[in-house]
Amino acid sequence: MKLKTLYSFFGTDLDIIEEELKRITASNYPLITEASLELIEAGGKRIRPVFVLLSAMFGAYNIDVVKHVAVALETIHMASLVHDDVIDDADIRRGKPTIKAKWNNRIAMYTGDYLLASSLVAMTNIENPEAHKILSKTMVEVCLGEIEQIKDKYNYEQSLRTYLKRIKRKTALLIAVSCQLGAVSAGASEDLHRKLYWFGYFVGMSFQITDDILDFTATEKELGKPVGSDLLQGNITLPVLFAMKDADIRAEIEKVSAETTADELKPIVEKIIRTDAIEKSYALSELYLEKAFAILKYLPRGRAKSTLSSIAKYIGKRKF
Amino acid sequence: MKLKTLYSFFGTDLDIIEEELKRITASNYPLITEASLELIEAGGKRIRPVFVLLSAMFGAYNIDVVKHVAVALETIHMASLVHDDVIDDADIRRGKPTIKAKWNNRIAMYTGDYLLASSLVAMTNIENPEAHKILSKTMVEVCLGEIEQIKDKYNYEQSLRTYLKRIKRKTALLIAVSCQLGAVSAGASEDLHRKLYWFGYFVGMSFQITDDILDFTATEKELGKPVGSDLLQGNITLPVLFAMKDADIRAEIEKVSAETTADELKPIVEKIIRTDAIEKSYALSELYLEKAFAILKYLPRGRAKSTLSSIAKYIGKRKF
Repeated sequence: MKLKTLYSFFGTDLDIIEEELKRITASNYPLITEASLELIEAGGKRIRPVFVLLSAMFGAYNIDVVKHVAVALETIHMASLVHDDVIDDADIRRGKPTIKAKWNNRIAMYTGDYLLASSLVAMTNIENPEAHKILSKTMVEVCLGEIEQIKDKYNYEQSLRTYLKRIKRKTALLIAVSCQLGAVSAGASEDLHRKLYWFGYFVGMSFQITDDILDFTATEKELGKPVGSDLLQGNITLPVLFAMKDADIRAEIEKVSAETTADELKPIVEKIIRTDAIEKSYALSELYLEKAFAILKYLPRGRAKSTLSSIAKYIGKRKF
Repeated sequence: MKLKTLYSFFGTDLDIIEEELKRITASNYPLITEASLELIEAGGKRIRPVFVLLSAMFGAYNIDVVKHVAVALETIHMASLVHDDVIDDADIRRGKPTIKAKWNNRIAMYTGDYLLASSLVAMTNIENPEAHKILSKTMVEVCLGEIEQIKDKYNYEQSLRTYLKRIKRKTALLIAVSCQLGAVSAGASEDLHRKLYWFGYFVGMSFQITDDILDFTATEKELGKPVGSDLLQGNITLPVLFAMKDADIRAEIEKVSAETTADELKPIVEKIIRTDAIEKSYALSELYLEKAFAILKYLPRGRAKSTLSSIAKYIGKRKF
């Protein structure tokens, strides 16, 4: 089953968001419009807009209001992807050349800045001052997360706690805030948007852990980039941290540096897969999902709740 | 006379802004705090905060409100400087190594992102939705201006119009919006903040043209960077456009590329200075100042107006 079928009942509301994404990122500059459009059309799961819409259903759902929040969160996400590719020196994402590869780092930097600024323009349609505060603070946290990620590259001394804090900032926070702001913008109660925040947070943690596992276990075709890209770029993820408990494998992993080639990495990736690191990582991902389900119990019944539940289940099982 | 003596009557209000700048950019990350602090302590003229404060005097001046606007505009300005240095591959600014030189392009990219996000956090203290709309749209324009600047590098076919549009986005807009938002946040009438916007716009145009002239006429010590840096980095400024009216000089200027060294540039800079390009550039700068003074006439009398007038005069005469 495809993820999209879970929320097909949104019908044209999802098309409205796609149109709004294109509208807000269009400029008089062919280069920037082309780069943004390419990012939009590359697709992606649109997980953040979907969480915004579903959470808004716990209040007074109005697509003409909530679409701005959905677009703001997706453009922040897109901006962070573009800047990430500069940091990671990544040439391929979702099977396509990245902006920094197709043009260069400078264009990527400004396309990211432009997307970030566009997200603010989208948000100015929302009058609630609390929503602005939440989003601004999230942007600061996301930036700090990226700085943390640079600092921790090829750092094999980092703890599980460091990893969890990093993926919170990198992924979980933006999904948590998608749920929270969807509810806030629809005028849902504070109790509801706090619960939705934590649901999003736990789902986000599980989502990123699964992503980090798939970087080792999926195929290059499924990933749209080479297997083991994270480690090659110096990003120490959960499977690596677990695999390093074995002293022999640790010694091999510690040799990975910015100079390591994809071919040199292959035998190390194979060794990591053969440990219990993948299994242990799945167990932690599962633990976060259970926390998400525990919160769902306290939300009012209805299609929004059942869909959030289906998406959480899907995320736990997804293969790519 | 120093610029600062013109607005010394603000007394501790300027210290409050310095403190707020430090507070808003402080983080748990030594690296990012250090980089931001270095930028803050490098000083700069704080022209944008001063325009915010002076414009707020046309309404109900309250430092505890207006300081947030001042800090928001200065942090956006700082963010654009950091990203500019990446674009320009600049190693020195105000006589000190740039963030990209001291650390690297990636750290500079995220320090800029972080400063941008911090400016939003500062603005969340302002409840006026119009203020947010104005700032967001300005950020988009500033980003588009930077993209334009990349596109126009070493492009000797550009027109005067292209140059003016670029410096509008690069400089004049942020000064215009400093004036506008100072007045908006102090509850001044729409008529007043529109006039202040245009005053800031014209002063900003003059300011940037003078900056572009000084890049040729000031000394390396005064500039804090080598003479002719703009042209060396491929930024075609007003004196260059005027000098290119001479076919011989044009032929020499057109040879300047990303490979040109500072030594190779020297004789070209000397030739440009010997044309009437500097004089013509000053005349255009003067024209913008006159437009600024024309608007000032329609503003209510008082210390704010007389100080704006003195600053505009200073900008017209400054030597570095």
